Parts: sequence; structure tokens; C-alpha cells
Amino acid sequence: MSSVRNARVLFNSHPESYPIPGETIVYDTTKTIDLQSIPLNGGFLIKTLVLSVDPFLRYRMNPGVDDHMGSFRIGAPLDGFGIGVVLRSETPEVQAGESLNNSIWTVFQEYTVYPALGELQILKKHPKLPLSVYLGAAGMPGQTAYLGWKAYADAKPGEVAFVTTGAGAVGSIVIQLAKQAGMKVIASAGSEEKVEFMRSLGADVAFNYKTTDTRKILEKEGPINVFWDHIGGEITDAGIEFAADGARILSVGYISGLNSSTGWPQIKKFHLVGLKSLHIHGILVTPLLEIPGYLEEFYEVMPRKLVSGEIKYVEDLTMGLDQVGEVMLAVLKGTNKGKAVVVVAEE
Amino acid sequence: MSSVRNARVLFNSHPESYPIPGETIVYDTTKTIDLQSIPLNGGFLIKTLVLSVDPFLRYRMNPGVDDHMGSFRIGAPLDGFGIGVVLRSETPEVQAGESLNNSIWTVFQEYTVYPALGELQILKKHPKLPLSVYLGAAGMPGQTAYLGWKAYADAKPGEVAFVTTGAGAVGSIVIQLAKQAGMKVIASAGSEEKVEFMRSLGADVAFNYKTTDTRKILEKEGPINVFWDHIGGEITDAGIEFAADGARILSVGYISGLNSSTGWPQIKKFHLVGLKSLHIHGILVTPLLEIPGYLEEFYEVMPRKLVSGEIKYVEDLTMGLDQVGEVMLAVLKGTNKGKAVVVVAEE
Repeated sequence: MSSVRNARVLFNSHPESYPIPGETIVYDTTKTIDLQSIPLNGGFLIKTLVLSVDPFLRYRMNPGVDDHMGSFRIGAPLDGFGIGVVLRSETPEVQAGESLNNSIWTVFQEYTVYPALGELQILKKHPKLPLSVYLGAAGMPGQTAYLGWKAYADAKPGEVAFVTTGAGAVGSIVIQLAKQAGMKVIASAGSEEKVEFMRSLGADVAFNYKTTDTRKILEKEGPINVFWDHIGGEITDAGIEFAADGARILSVGYISGLNSSTGWPQIKKFHLVGLKSLHIHGILVTPLLEIPGYLEEFYEVMPRKLVSGEIKYVEDLTMGLDQVGEVMLAVLKGTNKGKAVVVVAEE
Repeated sequence: MSSVRNARVLFNSHPESYPIPGETIVYDTTKTIDLQSIPLNGGFLIKTLVLSVDPFLRYRMNPGVDDHMGSFRIGAPLDGFGIGVVLRSETPEVQAGESLNNSIWTVFQEYTVYPALGELQILKKHPKLPLSVYLGAAGMPGQTAYLGWKAYADAKPGEVAFVTTGAGAVGSIVIQLAKQAGMKVIASAGSEEKVEFMRSLGADVAFNYKTTDTRKILEKEGPINVFWDHIGGEITDAGIEFAADGARILSVGYISGLNSSTGWPQIKKFHLVGLKSLHIHGILVTPLLEIPGYLEEFYEVMPRKLVSGEIKYVEDLTMGLDQVGEVMLAVLKGTNKGKAVVVVAEE
């Protein structure tokens, strides 16, 4: 019986604003694990392969998060979306060698014993898609984009869409869905490189929100019929102000408030919701997956379109569990490119 | 040829807060009209019978309203929903003796020559319903309640509804629709008399928002699945805060901002829209009427239910065009009871 290192990423302190690698979250190598003899007690042992680094992890670093996700506990490892491979199993429906993915309870450590399948799913991978894509375009972000759009965009040819964080894992897919629906697409992101990327995806009007006033663009290129809103606050107000009558607003996160401990930005234009007969839909992936037929359609359509190139995706892979803090910071500051994934180990 | 008085209600000045009868709007009797000889130029002459006094009239008293309704013009008569009878017609599709209703362009004066049918509709009245009901439960407020609920409430038995201004023309119908859908109904209004009325309509929890904290009621009786919101501002925030995951919020006007010239109350809890996967629908009657089959269903179902008593309604009739200013103030201060209608002339 020999033990190996079981490195972890621990939540260490509540951040005031941006999390600080090495302080807010700490890479810890003090633990070991005996892979052959650790008792499974009817569960199974997973070797973590890839982990997804998402903005909502920052939200869970706030104290007092009382929704279904909950706050991270100080001294405990982070958890989120990830994929691992089964090393040993005493659970009948789980076999060694299988990959398991997509639970937000994937623990950010190298090896973990899970007591039961729970919210983990057995992954049926397309042979031509890398595993990491199942954390991005073929995973939760792809599901958010494809199924959220399907359920609530009500897109019509010739209408105008506005997509924020259009170079991100979700937004980059939404741009392509909007173009394929025959819409004119306005898209924003935070660097010239991302603006170029959004143009390459088909965005008709792509701009850098750091150097160009979003309201001026919408005033000139709107009114908008579908608004894919990742930002919240002032940008939501701009979208409401320049929305066409009957427009659909998909509220997918609220980045403008994520790194603030002083509260969430307010909305000043809400009275226009009634006056313009707007429809606002808060988008979470879980309720979308519960709509009958939706997840089946996603796995039927999306991996095929990703392999064929009909829908393009970009990944930003970083090697090493010790890099989670830096990658988290890059995601929150918007300096990463494409879906941020940390590769913990090779298959 | 003899002329008769053609009294009017003129918009006279922009109100700072509540409109002041005799100052903001003025009853004017200086004009006359010769009913037999006034040229129709291909149009028709209407005698106004009943006029609806609605909160949105206050909105149009603000300067710079640039949506489809527009600001009232100083020195011109008000216009809104009303019903009149045709006295003379040179328009082929309009016959003398017919009633015309439901245009927001009904001019607030005793007699008006209209150039064409435009948005006016020929009224096919149920023989057992008074004409005035076609301005209330069988008219625009009834359509707002019945069709808005049908389109967006997605009501399920056992769920919880919260209805604001539950004693009003729209809210009182919504309470009954929610009960008939098998929901638990929380309802608020601004007097003990209205609270009693809401109880008589079936509300399970009825309270006076002036003496009872809405948030405390929702905390105790919620979370809420459907929120019929006439108020905006703090009450919208309370509804969002105590909304169940996936709740539907129908935003039907924004009374909290109507009498303010200092701006519309802000929304502080909008970030929860995404986190709780809420669905917010701005309700205007016009887009509802354009949904195929909706208006037909309304006229098929609603007058029958009103006559049978399956849906109850209360009217607040005031005699005389000179009373419009006082009735407007009562509507905005919430001191009226039931749908406010001014009777200009008997049929």
C-alpha cells in the first residue's frame, strides 16, 4: 500500500473584490491518498481530469449565499463543474474507466471518493470531441446558450440581437445561433482581439465596451429585439432603453455585481418593462435541462455541429490544479480567451 | 339650424405630482356644435356616452412621453378609452345608432366628428351587460387581466399568487382567475374596505399595504409563484425577493412612479432574476389582442361569466363630464372603488 499526493484547492478567505490567488484560494499539497486501499463504502473513487473555471465560483465566495449553490466554506475545497475518470467502484451503475461529468459538486482536488452517483452523470462522449469541450460548448455553457436561446429568444429573421461577453464560452455560441436565425447581431467584449474573434463568428457590429459607449452603439444600431445580458446594472438599463416593443431579454448572470462587496448595481429603467411589453427571462441551466426533450436534443445536435465546425468554439486550457486561482482571476477580469478549463491530469 | 353646447375636458398644465382639478385639467363649455349641419367629410359624428378614467392618463400628462401613446398637448382635450353612439355617418361601415368603443382616441368631449373608423371598434354588446362594463371587466381592464393571465401566469394548482391593487378593475379579476386556477392568493390594497372586498372575491390572505408591511406578509405566506405587479419600485423588489425559483412576474403599470416628477423608483434586486430563473412579462393590452384567437376567446368567455356572476365586478360610476378631474384624482389616490367610469350622457 502506497500513498500518493492528493492536492486540493482550498477556499481560504472571503474576497473584498477580485479574489487573490494564494490568499482567497490556496493550493494545498499536504494530503495524500492510498488509491488501492481507501475504503469506498459503496461509493467510487474518481481521478479528476478537467475542471471548469466559471464566474459563478466568485459569487459563491461571498458569505451568506443561501440559494441552492450555497457559499463556499472556509478551509474546504472548492467545487464546481468538472470531469473525472472512475478508478474503482462499489456502485453498481458506475464502472471503472468511465468518465463522469457535469456535477457542480466535482471537488477541486486530484482524487475524490464519492458516496453515490448523485448529480454526477456518466458521460457519453463523441469520439471526435476532446473531453474538455464537455465543460464548454458541449457542456454547461453550451447548454445555457443553446437551450436558453431555444426556449426564450423567439428569434425572427431580420430582427436585431445584442450579445454581451460575445467572446465568452456562452456568448460566442449565442452570436452564431443568432446569425443562423437570420438576425443582425451586435456583440460586445472587452478587448480588440475579442472584437476580431466576434467578427469571425459573424457578428455584424462588434465593439469593445471599454472604449466605445454601449448606449451609443445601441442607439445607432438598435432597437434590439433579443438582448443576451451577462452584465446587469447599467448595461441592462441600456438594453431596456433601446429595446424594441415586445423584446426578449435573457438575463444570464450579473457580472457587474460579482466582484463587488458593496451590493448589486440597481436598475433605473424597469418602468419601461411594462410600457414596452418586454419579456425578461432569468437563465439558469438546471430548469432548462428539466424541460422535456431539451437535454436529449442538445446531445443529439450540439456535439455533431461542434465536430463539423458548423458551430465554432475556442478553449483556453491551463495545465495544473495549482493554476486555478490565476485562471479564476483571468476569467473575472476578462483576460482569458474562450472557455477556461484547468487540466488536472491527462486521461 | 341650432347649436348645442359641446363641453370638453382640456389639458391645461403639467402636474408636479397629483393633477389638480380645475388647474391641471379644466372643464370647458365655451364651444358649441350644430349636430344637424356640421360637415362630416366622409366621417361620422359621435355622442360620447361613457369615458374610462385610467392611471395611464396621468402618465400622458408628463411632458416628453415619446411612446405610442404620447404626451397630452396643453390646450387640447384629453383622450382615452370611451364609448359613444353614432348620430350621423358618411362612413359606409358605420351606421347611425351603433355604439363604438375602445379606442384610446376617444376625445373627452360631448360630441366629436371622427374622420374614419381608425382604431374605433363597433361594439357587439351582450344584451344583459351595461355599456359601462365594456370600459371595465368586459373592456380593456378585463382584457388585460384575462388575456395577460392566460398568456403568462402559467398557473398551477397549489401555487401561490400575489396580486397588488387587488380591489381595482384589473386586480379584482386577477384574484378570481387565480382562485379558479386553484392557487393560494395573497392580495393587497390601500383600505380596510378594499381588503374586505378582496376577501369576498376569494383572496386567502388580504391586507392593507398602508398598515401592513408587504415584505413581512410575503416572507410569511410566500414564496410566490405568480406576482401581478401594478406598483413597481419597492414592491417589485419585495416580489422578486420572495419569489420562488421559476416564478412569473407580470409587470402591469408602475403606479409608484406615476405621480412623481423626480423619476421612476429603481429596482435593487434585479440580480435575483437570473439566480432564481424568474420570468418577467411587461403587460400591455395591445400586443395581447394581437395574439391569434385571444380577443375572440375574450368576447366568447368574459361577458358570459360576468352576466352569470362567475366573475364578479364592481363599477364606480360618476355622472357628468365636469367630474373627470375629481375622478382622476380619486383613481390616482386609490379612494375610488371598482372601475372608474364617467357617464357623460344617457343612451
